[in-house]
Amino acid sequence: MPDRSPFEVIKPEVRAISAYALTHFEADVKLDQNENPYEIPADLKRRIVARVLERDWGRYPEFVPEQLIQTLARFSGWSEDGILVGNGSNELISAAVAVTLGPGKTVAIPQPTFALYELMAKAAGATIQPVPLNEADLSFDVETLLEAARTSDVVIVCSPNSPTGSVLARSDARRLVSEARGLVIIDEAYHEFSGGTLFPLLEEFDNLLLLRTLSKAWSLAGIRFGYMMASAAIAAEIRKVKLPYSVNIFTLAAAELIVEELAVEGSVNKLIAARELLAAELASREGVEEFPSQANFILFRTRFVARRLFDALYQAGVLVRDVSGYPMLERCLRVSVGTPEDNTRFLEALDRALETLE
Amino acid sequence: MPDRSPFEVIKPEVRAISAYALTHFEADVKLDQNENPYEIPADLKRRIVARVLERDWGRYPEFVPEQLIQTLARFSGWSEDGILVGNGSNELISAAVAVTLGPGKTVAIPQPTFALYELMAKAAGATIQPVPLNEADLSFDVETLLEAARTSDVVIVCSPNSPTGSVLARSDARRLVSEARGLVIIDEAYHEFSGGTLFPLLEEFDNLLLLRTLSKAWSLAGIRFGYMMASAAIAAEIRKVKLPYSVNIFTLAAAELIVEELAVEGSVNKLIAARELLAAELASREGVEEFPSQANFILFRTRFVARRLFDALYQAGVLVRDVSGYPMLERCLRVSVGTPEDNTRFLEALDRALETLE
Repeated sequence: MPDRSPFEVIKPEVRAISAYALTHFEADVKLDQNENPYEIPADLKRRIVARVLERDWGRYPEFVPEQLIQTLARFSGWSEDGILVGNGSNELISAAVAVTLGPGKTVAIPQPTFALYELMAKAAGATIQPVPLNEADLSFDVETLLEAARTSDVVIVCSPNSPTGSVLARSDARRLVSEARGLVIIDEAYHEFSGGTLFPLLEEFDNLLLLRTLSKAWSLAGIRFGYMMASAAIAAEIRKVKLPYSVNIFTLAAAELIVEELAVEGSVNKLIAARELLAAELASREGVEEFPSQANFILFRTRFVARRLFDALYQAGVLVRDVSGYPMLERCLRVSVGTPEDNTRFLEALDRALETLE
Repeated sequence: MPDRSPFEVIKPEVRAISAYALTHFEADVKLDQNENPYEIPADLKRRIVARVLERDWGRYPEFVPEQLIQTLARFSGWSEDGILVGNGSNELISAAVAVTLGPGKTVAIPQPTFALYELMAKAAGATIQPVPLNEADLSFDVETLLEAARTSDVVIVCSPNSPTGSVLARSDARRLVSEARGLVIIDEAYHEFSGGTLFPLLEEFDNLLLLRTLSKAWSLAGIRFGYMMASAAIAAEIRKVKLPYSVNIFTLAAAELIVEELAVEGSVNKLIAARELLAAELASREGVEEFPSQANFILFRTRFVARRLFDALYQAGVLVRDVSGYPMLERCLRVSVGTPEDNTRFLEALDRALETLE
């Protein structure tokens, strides 16, 4: 007979964490997940699917998807042996955490940021060294981050940061990577909306790992595809723990065709223009404080309890994200930048809510 | 400046492991990955793809794919709150390892078996307690396994076992789960080919976790889909560390339609019949020792260095797996059961090789 309850087989650090959960809401205007509202062309979808239909689904995907990695190497300018692909960039963050963190290891993570970094690091048993953003404008506190990086095994920065939109300037990033004691992971999920990238630093430093995704600018959250770029030595170690065959035949076909053929500038530029309009609209409203964003979403604060405003917007058919549970984000909501129509619907609902709530 | 080389940021336990690698070979007759040669009907593929085309690819998959989990609950007879789905069962093994293993933890694993279990446990920093199969017939050494289970945090058993085909009888499995100190993970990737399952034990024990896949009997290795069944308490803990959105919109559509509509008995029964024929053929050959298998592959030993026989078969257009690097499997190859034509091609190539090699 087992002398433990089923819970006792679970590591205490896992029992201690709360799940990353997302309640399912349906809404007319969906602005809660930073998705790109401009879908890829129907013709491209059909051609991807035609490629998938040609394959035998009973056979494993390529162990190393060489053709796709070559395409990404051409597209990015990085060398093939430093590129790994994954089932969304989440999988690659998880693999990077697995090869570097464990009990006795520390990871510096700005706060607030994407919740999964901390969850993965905690599950690995690592010690988290949180580095709060500057309270006034939620920009990165570069000096404190540098200090933490000098004593941490790993640093994970999302830039532009979710859910704030803050960007780590390239000069600050260069100092960070240069002075860090260990690996610096930069998640560039939203970089296309900032017009910038830390890619040039990859040539200079072999302790830098950049993450990219097709979920945001490329409008492919449904297919789950991400890739990472790092030195060949780091990539080889991460390759060891990454699960084989994690990218299926559909995602391989989609990523190949899309990276080769799709020009994302069109929809990205529309969303950047819409973000600037939306930011100006928010700034013009009494009682609304909006934070500068270089991503495809805007964080804003009002005087109302976030949940009440969220509910009022939801009643009006507009779904945003209540991020008030994050550190420093009391009374904050995050709204993704949608189509001009979506954004107008949101602003109308917001205005009504600001009038009626009290 | 960093005071470490890029390698020093990697945990020593990761640096120590060698990658799970697979050299890419092309061949007419592909019998190296235990794939099901009978593809699902073309009409079903087209209907799955039609469902995928209807969706907006720019939107994330469901956070919890309720419809698919309901389908799996109906199909399996297990309750929804004890079912988790994954990007292949590999992802679920990895998540189960993440919540249970780490430095100071021990995991008992029969040897030889599927290499990923040990790789994942090592990457987590756990101590491996290998339990060799019985040398004579490569059956499970139940008493030694029970002994190890009494002092280990986790036990991982593949049954039918890859690459040997050995099965853990239900009565032995009941003792194992009953006497184990911690969690018992049973990978049933090949169970359909054995006609059996340890599913009934799930009702009796809350420290049992069963893994299933659509990659083998269901002929869907290319779409990457697996699921696990365990007590709701265990599933809730694993859900915490499992990456969100790991199953994409293509795989969700495919798994839903296929589990609802596909009858796998037809191709499974053909493969079982073909396995028995192939086993008899191998047994009838002088100098070939075949091991009893309840899976869709057969392990066999000859007097030749495995690599030489592998090469001779490959020259004849037949690709099998050289498994001689596994413990106890000197001079062994593994051949997947293919169509009758595939198996004949393999036997002809084997006969020629056995005659010509010396």
